[in-house]
Amino acid sequence: MAQAFLENDSQEFVENARKEIEATRPTARNLFYAVEKVFAAGLQSTTKAVAKAEAIAAKDAEDSFAIGNFGNELIRAGFNIATHCNAGWLAFVDYGTALSPVYRAHEEGKDPFVYADETRPRGQGARLTAWELNNAGIRHAIIPDNATAHLMSQGKIDLMIVGADRIAANGDVANKIGTLEKAVAARYFNIPFFVAAPLSTFDRSCSTGKEIPIEYRAEEEVLYQSGPDEDGNHQKILVSSPGSGAVNPAFDITPAALVSGIITEKGIIYSPDKEKIRRINS
Amino acid sequence: MAQAFLENDSQEFVENARKEIEATRPTARNLFYAVEKVFAAGLQSTTKAVAKAEAIAAKDAEDSFAIGNFGNELIRAGFNIATHCNAGWLAFVDYGTALSPVYRAHEEGKDPFVYADETRPRGQGARLTAWELNNAGIRHAIIPDNATAHLMSQGKIDLMIVGADRIAANGDVANKIGTLEKAVAARYFNIPFFVAAPLSTFDRSCSTGKEIPIEYRAEEEVLYQSGPDEDGNHQKILVSSPGSGAVNPAFDITPAALVSGIITEKGIIYSPDKEKIRRINS
Repeated sequence: MAQAFLENDSQEFVENARKEIEATRPTARNLFYAVEKVFAAGLQSTTKAVAKAEAIAAKDAEDSFAIGNFGNELIRAGFNIATHCNAGWLAFVDYGTALSPVYRAHEEGKDPFVYADETRPRGQGARLTAWELNNAGIRHAIIPDNATAHLMSQGKIDLMIVGADRIAANGDVANKIGTLEKAVAARYFNIPFFVAAPLSTFDRSCSTGKEIPIEYRAEEEVLYQSGPDEDGNHQKILVSSPGSGAVNPAFDITPAALVSGIITEKGIIYSPDKEKIRRINS
Repeated sequence: MAQAFLENDSQEFVENARKEIEATRPTARNLFYAVEKVFAAGLQSTTKAVAKAEAIAAKDAEDSFAIGNFGNELIRAGFNIATHCNAGWLAFVDYGTALSPVYRAHEEGKDPFVYADETRPRGQGARLTAWELNNAGIRHAIIPDNATAHLMSQGKIDLMIVGADRIAANGDVANKIGTLEKAVAARYFNIPFFVAAPLSTFDRSCSTGKEIPIEYRAEEEVLYQSGPDEDGNHQKILVSSPGSGAVNPAFDITPAALVSGIITEKGIIYSPDKEKIRRINS
């Protein structure tokens, strides 16, 4: 958004840029939050737009670090931690949300092991989370999304931490498709299920998760897969039966009742509800 | 196994053939059942081995048809049915197990719609179940495994039917990885969850699911995907971050408590337990 102001600060251009950015994703709250703030600053001056963007990035890094510190308290030495999708520093600034407690625990020598759900259809866990963890030297394994409940049933997962794209006023959590399924499994096997997210992820205009729009994406994401072949050439292959279609909801809503706690930059909201969320936000 | 006797009926050859066939999969009960029967017949004569194999195939088709008739009673017109992996006629003879009720419902004009879980990592749902349904002209869509609970939460699934690789004496079900996760979700959202399997799938030597060995397969199945590119050339691509490993359990155990009923060729065992299973088997 700040880049748009730098390029051309005419009303028409920046309004179109704002629409274009917002149209990329209907579900994530932080996107709208940041675009709105930078847009408002830019209407005063381009310098202010850039300053606001930089301030948001700095605040994001600071919040992620605080989330890491609070979440780290949940992690005991040698814990096996499951996560879904990517909520590390590739998705945020510097530390990330769901992975930030893992990074802090690793720094403190707790030697955590992470099961990264591959997160079909886009594979953010297999591609991004695994890449982050590998670079950080944190022990981990990619697992098929289908294997999460099995590992829970075998006592191989001590804690699950995921991120959030948007959180309703009552604590219902919109996050990457499959999060709901993992939360239900975690509850069944009595495994603590935490959501890590800065307070800017909360959307008080949505009283419950039912009001959060769920993005449905192209069926091609399910029917095809892309990646490098052994010569490093990018290939797109069909991984399904020709002629069949797919349904591809990109997010789901995990009811607050299934969330052990939400790890924010101001502390952990255990058994989240409307009143506790209102209090921490004020 | 009968083919081995036809090729060379020396003791050493057929014993090696038996070991080789059995070593392919440690979890599926029917495999051991059929191999054992044909082997025993073959020790009398090769003709008897062939006759036994043909009888088993004929019985399999007959059982699948009976399973279809019993399961069909669970299906109302316009039902949306979810399934996991492939338990159609590609996996059995003529009708299959989990899909057999769907085929019967379709023949009766109930116009069922099937959500086929893609069933990572091997994609049996996306590749085999979708192929079967497409050929049969049954309305269906492939969904990422992660989307099952979401669709259940939206009231879009009326019934789930899966197959089984082995069923313990108490009704615990070993089936393709992810089945447990779907069963837990079905219970949470109060959706009937049925297992379709012939009585030969029951293994009375396993008192509970804990005794069923779970096959762990190569991590390459998770890290890579194979399929045709747009020119129809087979390609193998990396779908994960280079340098990260994977954990790949191929099956999981769904406790009997999560199973609404087991559809067998002798009828449906509702809320399966040891006593009900013993009675139907006797």
